[in-house]
Amino acid sequence: MSRDVQPSFADVGAAAERIRPFAHRTPVLTCSSLDAMVGASLFFKCENFQKVGAFKFRGACNAVFSLGEEEAQRGVATHSSGNHAAALSLAARLRGIPAHVVMPRTSRAVKRAAVAGYGGRIVLCEPTLAAREATLAEVIADTGATVIHPYTDARVIAGQGTAALELLEDVRGLDVVMTPVGGGGLLSGTAISVTSLSPATRVVAAEPEGADDAFRSLQEGRIVPSVNPQTVCDGLLTSLGTLTFAIIRERLAEIVTVSDAAVIRAMRHVWERMKIVIEPSAAVTLGALLEGRLPVSGLRVGIILSGGNVDLSELPWGQNQ
Amino acid sequence: MSRDVQPSFADVGAAAERIRPFAHRTPVLTCSSLDAMVGASLFFKCENFQKVGAFKFRGACNAVFSLGEEEAQRGVATHSSGNHAAALSLAARLRGIPAHVVMPRTSRAVKRAAVAGYGGRIVLCEPTLAAREATLAEVIADTGATVIHPYTDARVIAGQGTAALELLEDVRGLDVVMTPVGGGGLLSGTAISVTSLSPATRVVAAEPEGADDAFRSLQEGRIVPSVNPQTVCDGLLTSLGTLTFAIIRERLAEIVTVSDAAVIRAMRHVWERMKIVIEPSAAVTLGALLEGRLPVSGLRVGIILSGGNVDLSELPWGQNQ
Repeated sequence: MSRDVQPSFADVGAAAERIRPFAHRTPVLTCSSLDAMVGASLFFKCENFQKVGAFKFRGACNAVFSLGEEEAQRGVATHSSGNHAAALSLAARLRGIPAHVVMPRTSRAVKRAAVAGYGGRIVLCEPTLAAREATLAEVIADTGATVIHPYTDARVIAGQGTAALELLEDVRGLDVVMTPVGGGGLLSGTAISVTSLSPATRVVAAEPEGADDAFRSLQEGRIVPSVNPQTVCDGLLTSLGTLTFAIIRERLAEIVTVSDAAVIRAMRHVWERMKIVIEPSAAVTLGALLEGRLPVSGLRVGIILSGGNVDLSELPWGQNQ
Repeated sequence: MSRDVQPSFADVGAAAERIRPFAHRTPVLTCSSLDAMVGASLFFKCENFQKVGAFKFRGACNAVFSLGEEEAQRGVATHSSGNHAAALSLAARLRGIPAHVVMPRTSRAVKRAAVAGYGGRIVLCEPTLAAREATLAEVIADTGATVIHPYTDARVIAGQGTAALELLEDVRGLDVVMTPVGGGGLLSGTAISVTSLSPATRVVAAEPEGADDAFRSLQEGRIVPSVNPQTVCDGLLTSLGTLTFAIIRERLAEIVTVSDAAVIRAMRHVWERMKIVIEPSAAVTLGALLEGRLPVSGLRVGIILSGGNVDLSELPWGQNQ
């Protein structure tokens, strides 16, 4: 499977087989009080319970275990510093190969600790995109490691599509499946699974108003870069890639925007009502529904809760109020 | 079933049948990183996912649906203001009868809102035990309602025992089953189920050091009242009742104590690693294990996570650090 070509639904199926020994089959939860708030039947696919606390493990794991033996032994590398870096580190450790993670020296200690905890080798650099790319190039020159991009990679996209595959296996007759959208890996993988397995089901992503580059990209028919995004959703700051953009357009996925206020409200509702921890980026979908950005009255809506990695010392609501 | 006589294991089985249409069969979750911290295999019974967010719904529901038709029509009453009040309100609503909840006028708005949200009728009183009891007596005189005590009630204890019953059905070969202990309803119900179904399994409760009246009661062989308890575990402030104390002694349940610092650490670990929300009272068991209060190296340990009702605006760890 070439990493630059759109993955097929068969690739998603192969990814599901490949990652099965390593990834959790996450549960689908429901919540009657959230259903009542939205006026729909909501089915939450809990990727916050996935290994490393995010769906990202699916794509990273599929990519790492897709490598040939010789290629694998030289290791993998990335300059992401979020959930993808942690996911790649764990997937590499499970295969017994090194993962090199280029991170800006200004990155937070908690993020470095997560990557190191999963066995990733951290290479610090100056906090500019040029420095990150130059440092990554050095790492590759030194080690021969394979770069695994967080979303512009067919193996990663196919892996992310396995979450929707499982959701559709567990819940029949969904009218809509929703995901967040940042770089578009989860959305494009989801679109492949849903359009293949359940063509009548709409695929709708939610995106923060302050980082609405994907929304505008679909409107304008070209990739609009994410410039100075302002949102509490730290996992949704990136722009679409050519591969994810093409899949999203061809599979007719839709995008709605949502305010940060609604995201925080939705996040808090999920913690309070469902008693589960999700990160702000995972709350954009419910936030959009609470804000009425997508009419779903009476519908059956699948929602992929993308992750649960939150710094519990920096919650987006006031304390002691 | 008399409410003042020790319930049998058959009573627990009958309770399980009675509450089945209304209560959740909660999942049992595991977490490899918490296992590694403790050096044991931990099986978490997630009563934070129970209706009203706590195991208390089991006992309240069993009590409410045990009432005869005529008795039930006069309603139920309590002067608890925590999870039991919410649980009793919901159980009563499900049966279509009134629940009268006497609460001190100083009780927090969030607690009142919870009770009212489940349909309970709140009767405010002065914040003294005498006023609460007098007001409850007035309510009973006015309405003929049946008082459902939060733990000194065989129907409630039998209901609480259904959590351990499910845990033992789902997980075989447990060496230990752990619960928190406040008034002893959950602990005594658990002891009935475990000693009946799996006699080789130890039953061990954890109690905050600053509210260790149950620990001292077992040591001294008499009920030591809880006087001025100091702990973050607001669900564990009460003393044992005669009924729960007798069951706990006869069934040879053990009690270990735990510091509040370990409770908070354990609570945070569960949120961070398992991505689920539990309240401080539910974290005493894992806290005790983290603190080495019970040697469990290599053992299989069932832990009943008692509830997940937390005020998200008042978390017991610092923010923006």
